Amino acid sequence: MEENDDSEIIEHHVNEEMEKKGFRTRHTHLFLESASSSEREGHSSTQSSHRLLAYSDALISIIATVMILPVAHTKIKDDEELKESLQQLLTTKIAVYLMTFLIVTVAWAAHIRLFQVIERIDDCLALLNLACMMLITFLPYTFSLMATFPENTLGVLLFCTCVIVIGLIQAIIVVYGFSRPFLLNDQIQISENQGFYKRHILKVILRVPLFCLVAIVFSFIFFPLSYVLLAVVIFFPYISQSLKWCRGKAIGQQDETPDSMLFYSYRPNEPLSKERVEAFSDGVYAIVATLLILDICEDNVPDPGEVQRRFGGSLIEALQGFGPEFLAYFGSFATVGLLWFVHHSLFLHVTRTSRLMGLLNTFSLAFVGGLPLAYELTHEFPPNSRNELEAIQISCVIIFFAGVFQLAIWVAALFDERETLHPYVRYGGRDHAFMLAKLAVYPCVALATFFVTCALSRFSAAVFHLAQIGVPVAFLLLRLLVRLGLALLRRLLGPAAAPPAGRAPEEDDPRVPFTDMLT
Amino acid sequence: MEENDDSEIIEHHVNEEMEKKGFRTRHTHLFLESASSSEREGHSSTQSSHRLLAYSDALISIIATVMILPVAHTKIKDDEELKESLQQLLTTKIAVYLMTFLIVTVAWAAHIRLFQVIERIDDCLALLNLACMMLITFLPYTFSLMATFPENTLGVLLFCTCVIVIGLIQAIIVVYGFSRPFLLNDQIQISENQGFYKRHILKVILRVPLFCLVAIVFSFIFFPLSYVLLAVVIFFPYISQSLKWCRGKAIGQQDETPDSMLFYSYRPNEPLSKERVEAFSDGVYAIVATLLILDICEDNVPDPGEVQRRFGGSLIEALQGFGPEFLAYFGSFATVGLLWFVHHSLFLHVTRTSRLMGLLNTFSLAFVGGLPLAYELTHEFPPNSRNELEAIQISCVIIFFAGVFQLAIWVAALFDERETLHPYVRYGGRDHAFMLAKLAVYPCVALATFFVTCALSRFSAAVFHLAQIGVPVAFLLLRLLVRLGLALLRRLLGPAAAPPAGRAPEEDDPRVPFTDMLT
Repeated sequence: MEENDDSEIIEHHVNEEMEKKGFRTRHTHLFLESASSSEREGHSSTQSSHRLLAYSDALISIIATVMILPVAHTKIKDDEELKESLQQLLTTKIAVYLMTFLIVTVAWAAHIRLFQVIERIDDCLALLNLACMMLITFLPYTFSLMATFPENTLGVLLFCTCVIVIGLIQAIIVVYGFSRPFLLNDQIQISENQGFYKRHILKVILRVPLFCLVAIVFSFIFFPLSYVLLAVVIFFPYISQSLKWCRGKAIGQQDETPDSMLFYSYRPNEPLSKERVEAFSDGVYAIVATLLILDICEDNVPDPGEVQRRFGGSLIEALQGFGPEFLAYFGSFATVGLLWFVHHSLFLHVTRTSRLMGLLNTFSLAFVGGLPLAYELTHEFPPNSRNELEAIQISCVIIFFAGVFQLAIWVAALFDERETLHPYVRYGGRDHAFMLAKLAVYPCVALATFFVTCALSRFSAAVFHLAQIGVPVAFLLLRLLVRLGLALLRRLLGPAAAPPAGRAPEEDDPRVPFTDMLT
Repeated sequence: MEENDDSEIIEHHVNEEMEKKGFRTRHTHLFLESASSSEREGHSSTQSSHRLLAYSDALISIIATVMILPVAHTKIKDDEELKESLQQLLTTKIAVYLMTFLIVTVAWAAHIRLFQVIERIDDCLALLNLACMMLITFLPYTFSLMATFPENTLGVLLFCTCVIVIGLIQAIIVVYGFSRPFLLNDQIQISENQGFYKRHILKVILRVPLFCLVAIVFSFIFFPLSYVLLAVVIFFPYISQSLKWCRGKAIGQQDETPDSMLFYSYRPNEPLSKERVEAFSDGVYAIVATLLILDICEDNVPDPGEVQRRFGGSLIEALQGFGPEFLAYFGSFATVGLLWFVHHSLFLHVTRTSRLMGLLNTFSLAFVGGLPLAYELTHEFPPNSRNELEAIQISCVIIFFAGVFQLAIWVAALFDERETLHPYVRYGGRDHAFMLAKLAVYPCVALATFFVTCALSRFSAAVFHLAQIGVPVAFLLLRLLVRLGLALLRRLLGPAAAPPAGRAPEEDDPRVPFTDMLT
């Protein structure tokens, strides 16, 4: 991606010269051998794909998160038991939300792979991509139709048709890209067996539509089998990827399977584009942070007539009823913002994203997407009720898992730290302990709050939200706390090795590696 | 921004070396004179601000667009006349939407200016920025409260308090940034009078909170004056900017007023960050494209019980009622997608964004944000009713203005084409005519449809949406059409200068400048 940005800058300067050179260079493009970007970019309609991908990421992340709305907006009556209502919800709507999130993420991963092959675009590709996006954004609806009417073939039919059309559009994009080799990435462009690459990529892309076609056929013959097929389509890449990674770790023969790796990613060297993982995550965090204000703006502006009637014209009294909503908004925004902040800090230290890290990131984001549900619940019930306590517990569980999966990304990165992390956060690096502390704040706080609510019989949502707004202070003090903790550890573990006297002036910049400080 | 990206890459490689060098270099940072990024970036906690800004842009663009929802979700009964209902709407909700959009955009412009001064961030700045974002996302609500209860001081009070706190946080960011000069941009970092810059920037930032403080005071004494003050705060930069630009064009003494230019932008040489304008626009287009599917996912999955009761279990029949919604979704998505596509093509050719272009872009986006209203209207009324015709006309007007303001961006860019455009789209460049055609498609189509609906007494929304889905074909054929048009023009205008026989093989690449083809 970064290479690409550079060549984009070069492109426009070069175009001027190209005009003068005229047609001589033009015909050589078709028989392109040299990898110098200046010659290749001379095509008048060629563009860097950077902004197209950013826009696609924004669309896909919004769509992935949108399905939480039907869950969050389900009204639970005050007299109902939250646990029972939630069990009903869990069986359908929450499951639909999580599945949709996974499905959209699978489509997104396929989109990443596709545009790792095609690195430059023209108008035609941009329009084809928009058509593809249109169908991807329609996927959640067809899936929720399928989930609501599991006995009806129409849902499966619509869903599979969508997937098949998306696959066909992507196949067209690939064929179009290979017919104009200057659009392809440099590795494929200079390789001699472009035909092999083309066939291979088409095979990978068309595999999913083929499965769906079979699923359609089975939906008429033997119903349940089509669901099994769809489940295979969605989970197979994840499962096979996880298994392969585990086996690779266990036996240590990771590098010996380039061919099967190639089967899932077209370019084994570039696992997932870090830039796009960040863009997608930003989209999810941004839409989650704003979903609540969206509701507030729409529902919580009181009606002038009603204020006159019920509150004698006093706006302050009318707004006091909305107090819990506002507090929930600020609490929710602070939590989402800080989870983003931790994610941002983490990916600042990541040099490349392996597929396992991408998968863990997806899980973390799926829980982040569940936060609007948590906040709808916390401000919905009367203060100090049993339901309010349970709503807070659910919030804690969601925040805990969102944080724990972020921590898991880091642990996964540490397994291949030479490949994935900058030196100073690797084990023994100077920021290692600090990064760990940052990642541990939310899981620890959420877990502690959960146990506190279990011990207490009542707990106010207001206190919970105020605590959320107070967490940023913890992050500000974190560096200090980590240093204190390390000093304490050093004293406890290694009392023999007394700290040298000259250490004091370094306190404001903990450059000393973690292991140094401990021993 | 692009410089910054490079230095970010360098940063991490350098950090390793920095660790070995130890403390010698650290103390020189405070007295930094050299502009080489490698030394400056050695601070352990310094980060590139790129992703923070992208996230902020996403948040602000969503918030700016959100206020269309209360407008779009206002239900109009079938028997009501659309025109009358719309006039009622216009006086309050639509005005509130447009004003909110402008206010949020002003806050966004201030955010851009701030982070043109501070180019690197650390944890503390990231957290301060999140706090700032939290309050910016709350602005729309306080403003709509103010608009709903114009007679009540509470609205003004809340709005002004928000603005004051935002201003104070930004002031803290500036003070913090200047206390750690390695966070500042290179120009200010190497300048000798940093103190002057600091005072000047603080003055510019604190001007707005000061105005708001005065407005609060007046809200208790003489009510209407506080609204006048707020209007001045919001519109003053735009008006003064426009006036200055017009005067500069008329008298031609643009370059003689660097000091007053400095008063509105801290860095007169960098008018608006093109990257951030793109990110903000992407956010608006993405959220607008998905607002309709958001509604569809939530409302249009039929209830299994109802399907059994009303349609005898036939899902297809139940879904047929939603037909217009689906068609409206695809039509809306195609239109928003293509408007994005035109915007993308335009900004591909723009090298830098002047403030006037930024303003015109805001206007274009404000109309794009109005599209969800148009689509809610078009599928709401029974086919072939008077209201449906008017809903289509409103859609046409919104699309027309969104397109015309995009065209205006280009016209504004042409005024300073040496500064703002790449050579090949300047007047006479080889892609000039093609770009013009691209930008003209939507205004022309919308205007034509508008007149057709005026002439006909009835017009089906279904036909309208199908036409929208068909527009991409026009874009695919556009290059061909432009070439045909130019050839025709050449024949009509210059029959004396017969086209040379050798032109035929060039047809597939119109490199010949526009003026050449005409003469």
